[in-house]
Amino acid sequence: MDSTTSSFEHRLKDNAGKVEAVLGRLLADACLNGEIVRPTRLLEAMRHGVLNGGKRLRPFLVMETAALLDGNGDAALRIGAALECVHCYSLVHDDLPAMDDDDLRRGQPTVHIAFDYATAILAGDSLLTYAFDIIAAPETDLPAGRKIELVLALSRAAGIGGMAGGQALDLAAEKETPDERGITMLQAMKTGALIRFACEAGAIIAGAPAEDRQRLRLFGEKIGLAFQLADDLLDLTADAATMGKATGKDAARGKGTLVALHGQAWAETTLARLVTEASELLSPYGEKATVLIETARFVANRKS
Amino acid sequence: MDSTTSSFEHRLKDNAGKVEAVLGRLLADACLNGEIVRPTRLLEAMRHGVLNGGKRLRPFLVMETAALLDGNGDAALRIGAALECVHCYSLVHDDLPAMDDDDLRRGQPTVHIAFDYATAILAGDSLLTYAFDIIAAPETDLPAGRKIELVLALSRAAGIGGMAGGQALDLAAEKETPDERGITMLQAMKTGALIRFACEAGAIIAGAPAEDRQRLRLFGEKIGLAFQLADDLLDLTADAATMGKATGKDAARGKGTLVALHGQAWAETTLARLVTEASELLSPYGEKATVLIETARFVANRKS
Repeated sequence: MDSTTSSFEHRLKDNAGKVEAVLGRLLADACLNGEIVRPTRLLEAMRHGVLNGGKRLRPFLVMETAALLDGNGDAALRIGAALECVHCYSLVHDDLPAMDDDDLRRGQPTVHIAFDYATAILAGDSLLTYAFDIIAAPETDLPAGRKIELVLALSRAAGIGGMAGGQALDLAAEKETPDERGITMLQAMKTGALIRFACEAGAIIAGAPAEDRQRLRLFGEKIGLAFQLADDLLDLTADAATMGKATGKDAARGKGTLVALHGQAWAETTLARLVTEASELLSPYGEKATVLIETARFVANRKS
Repeated sequence: MDSTTSSFEHRLKDNAGKVEAVLGRLLADACLNGEIVRPTRLLEAMRHGVLNGGKRLRPFLVMETAALLDGNGDAALRIGAALECVHCYSLVHDDLPAMDDDDLRRGQPTVHIAFDYATAILAGDSLLTYAFDIIAAPETDLPAGRKIELVLALSRAAGIGGMAGGQALDLAAEKETPDERGITMLQAMKTGALIRFACEAGAIIAGAPAEDRQRLRLFGEKIGLAFQLADDLLDLTADAATMGKATGKDAARGKGTLVALHGQAWAETTLARLVTEASELLSPYGEKATVLIETARFVANRKS
């Protein structure tokens, strides 16, 4: 590990701590608005699904893209936390027996194992709902117009035209392997949409001009692709202990990936190209974009 | 059926037709933003869960409360459609085997029966997400500030402190019957919160002063209570053919209801009292409130 990597990873970890702290506070109160009690078991299940020591890459992207454009840091932290609720809801539901049927997530029992099936469904539902509460709440210090842009962009990234639709295509892909175009669309929706939103969110928070927003959106698309490609490589090469979840599942399910289609060497070349393209997109911002360019590199080269 | 009831039911039915048409359009396009295709099977499952000829009581309340305060009718129709997506998502998930395990809803197979378990989970997730898309979309002609108030109020009504939390308490109640206070809170969250939101939404859409908003919120609370009480009575007395779903399930599950606790006569007296209280709340609006007062009566006396 060279010193640059180490400094970046320190920053990522430091940021994850902040996100974890905010999420912990947001999911701490048994009383909402001082009147209605949050059912304890459901709240515990939500906490189990969220407070699990993740890398918090999506919130990091929200915060770093907001910082690049001088957006409000506290608001970015809350939007990042909201996004992480959406990400974690998707993991809780994807792990369910009717979906990917996973017992393990980041080395811990998944929510339906630690609690029960019904509670896991409701915990996912509640996390998704709560994300919009967090964005809209008065504590998120942004003009209403920007909040509504965030609600719109997030709901589109997460819904049938984005993440949830991608998961539906992914389930269908277990029965009939899609072609290259199909795999690319599936991944752009399932994993890419939320990562793209993370980068676009920074521009929305900062109230940046359309040009910056489009630039960051494209940057998000590039690293979304890189993230998925790295994930497919890891599924092929890493072991379960490193990943904290089952690996080799794609192949076992006959699930098509671009790595399976084109091979490992192609994947590594493509990853390098995506990092270059992502970096070039940020060249207008000069030195200020260093952390985001390091993030692209990190996403492409991650080992877990 | 006297002529007043008939005229009211005609209005309700006419309105349901409008809501159904908007929902049909919102769930029709295979392309979102002209770029990403909505997976067909998932979209079909969403349509199955939504376009089922329901009474559309919640959208009706949004539209009539908005009309009472001279709010934008087209916007109210879209907010009503968004709310109906949330209501239908909750039915799709509540019907799942891990939850209430129902095969029949309004005389039709439930989504997980007509499609499959995973698709039903994703259809519910996507409907919930889509509700926020509909509110935030530029086609909803409201100032951003009001949209954000709607997002906040809806997410709180639907989330852990509202409907989803109420469903968690309801599942727990099958194992340990709650006391009267527990039942009341459970029902206020599970059913009441969304009906209360429907009434409050009209005031938000109209940009009405806090006093009107509070008044309509209380009105929504009264008819939410009446709705649940009428539901409990129906579960006790109606047959499955009338209801289009299984009945007598509460008793079979040993689930506590206020009707079981206090008896049918008490329930009928309480329903009459709730209608009176709801009507009195709207007395400042004079003649203009006639339809809403008829709605309260309809909710209390409904036979299906």
